[in-house]
Amino acid sequence: MESIDELAVGPCVASQYLRPFRLRYRQNGISKLWDFMRTHDSVSILIFNISRQCFVVVKQFRPAVYMCEMEEQRPQCFENKTAESWCPLSDFLPASKGITYELCAGIIDQPELSLEEIACKEILEECGYEVPLTSLKRITSYRSGVGVTGSKQTLFYAQVTDDMKSSEGGGQPEEGELIEVVEIPLQDSMKFAFDETFPKTMGVIFSFMWFQSNIAPKLLEK
Amino acid sequence: MESIDELAVGPCVASQYLRPFRLRYRQNGISKLWDFMRTHDSVSILIFNISRQCFVVVKQFRPAVYMCEMEEQRPQCFENKTAESWCPLSDFLPASKGITYELCAGIIDQPELSLEEIACKEILEECGYEVPLTSLKRITSYRSGVGVTGSKQTLFYAQVTDDMKSSEGGGQPEEGELIEVVEIPLQDSMKFAFDETFPKTMGVIFSFMWFQSNIAPKLLEK
Repeated sequence: MESIDELAVGPCVASQYLRPFRLRYRQNGISKLWDFMRTHDSVSILIFNISRQCFVVVKQFRPAVYMCEMEEQRPQCFENKTAESWCPLSDFLPASKGITYELCAGIIDQPELSLEEIACKEILEECGYEVPLTSLKRITSYRSGVGVTGSKQTLFYAQVTDDMKSSEGGGQPEEGELIEVVEIPLQDSMKFAFDETFPKTMGVIFSFMWFQSNIAPKLLEK
Repeated sequence: MESIDELAVGPCVASQYLRPFRLRYRQNGISKLWDFMRTHDSVSILIFNISRQCFVVVKQFRPAVYMCEMEEQRPQCFENKTAESWCPLSDFLPASKGITYELCAGIIDQPELSLEEIACKEILEECGYEVPLTSLKRITSYRSGVGVTGSKQTLFYAQVTDDMKSSEGGGQPEEGELIEVVEIPLQDSMKFAFDETFPKTMGVIFSFMWFQSNIAPKLLEK
């Protein structure tokens, strides 16, 4: 699916995406320090295409996941990487090691938009479906990465039909997004959810299971 | 539950917990940059006490979650915080804003231990139960924070009895851990899982639901 090359790891002293801080505080009288990062909160959406009885998820190359694998399999690649220079990576793994299956999702970086508006925008940009705001169903919210970012994630459910498809999706290439839209047939979905050879987020596993308990019985009734 | 005071936010230029990097690469011919962090992989454990028919989870103050709330409700507290000086926080929120419910969990920072050994160690340290290695059941693994850390999380299930309780748990105070062990009765667990007034991780919600599908039916048979 993807080809990657010319990899180099460098310092990250200031980033508009990652803002590391240290909090000093006293808890029950004891002084403490904790390092954390400010990142954006986000929304994610479980999309079910009722015309074709399949989930619509996205698949993309994730540098952070890829570099986890690199550190595990090529530990030397991070040695002495706190210095200020860029260091080209040789002997790198195939891009497939950094590919994950995820729910359609987006960060909350436009305060003028509601969570639902951001969710609909992401569904259109990433997956190509035009979903009316009112048809989104809020599933729940939760905290992600409680040790590091603690950001709030809100999960929605959107039922779509083939008629609502207006474009190919795939993200915004001008922002460097290269997203592949993948359909997972309902009948294969629980097997897929627990098959660890397909790297995925907990959002995918959880929401597929939520669907089985909350939506599938109603579909059968119809 | 907790009292916090004397809060100050400072710079985090080097951290043994957070290691920010920037990856430069070419994907399908297009040059890209991505900021990411190296953190540790982790294990988490859904603990069910069969003697008292309840889940055993932990509750703790999370600075990262707390500071998310601070930024939302007191946006000025992060302004100009990229400078090098420490800045005391006034007008801060109560500690309760940073408390989350989580599965018993731990980072993988001892390469000589297996995932199962780390899981058993955490169950004892945090929740006070002595669980034999062989009684752990692997549920699945997944990727967390795919945009930022991409770390691998492995989820286990452990069934315990009151007889296996050997200490109070609560974490390692010498490492600054202040963990409260909380029992969630099975009969209230799905209501708790979807009640957003109790901030929690997706691991809690997912694993409670997994239990309903995979373990609860077998308990009823007995």
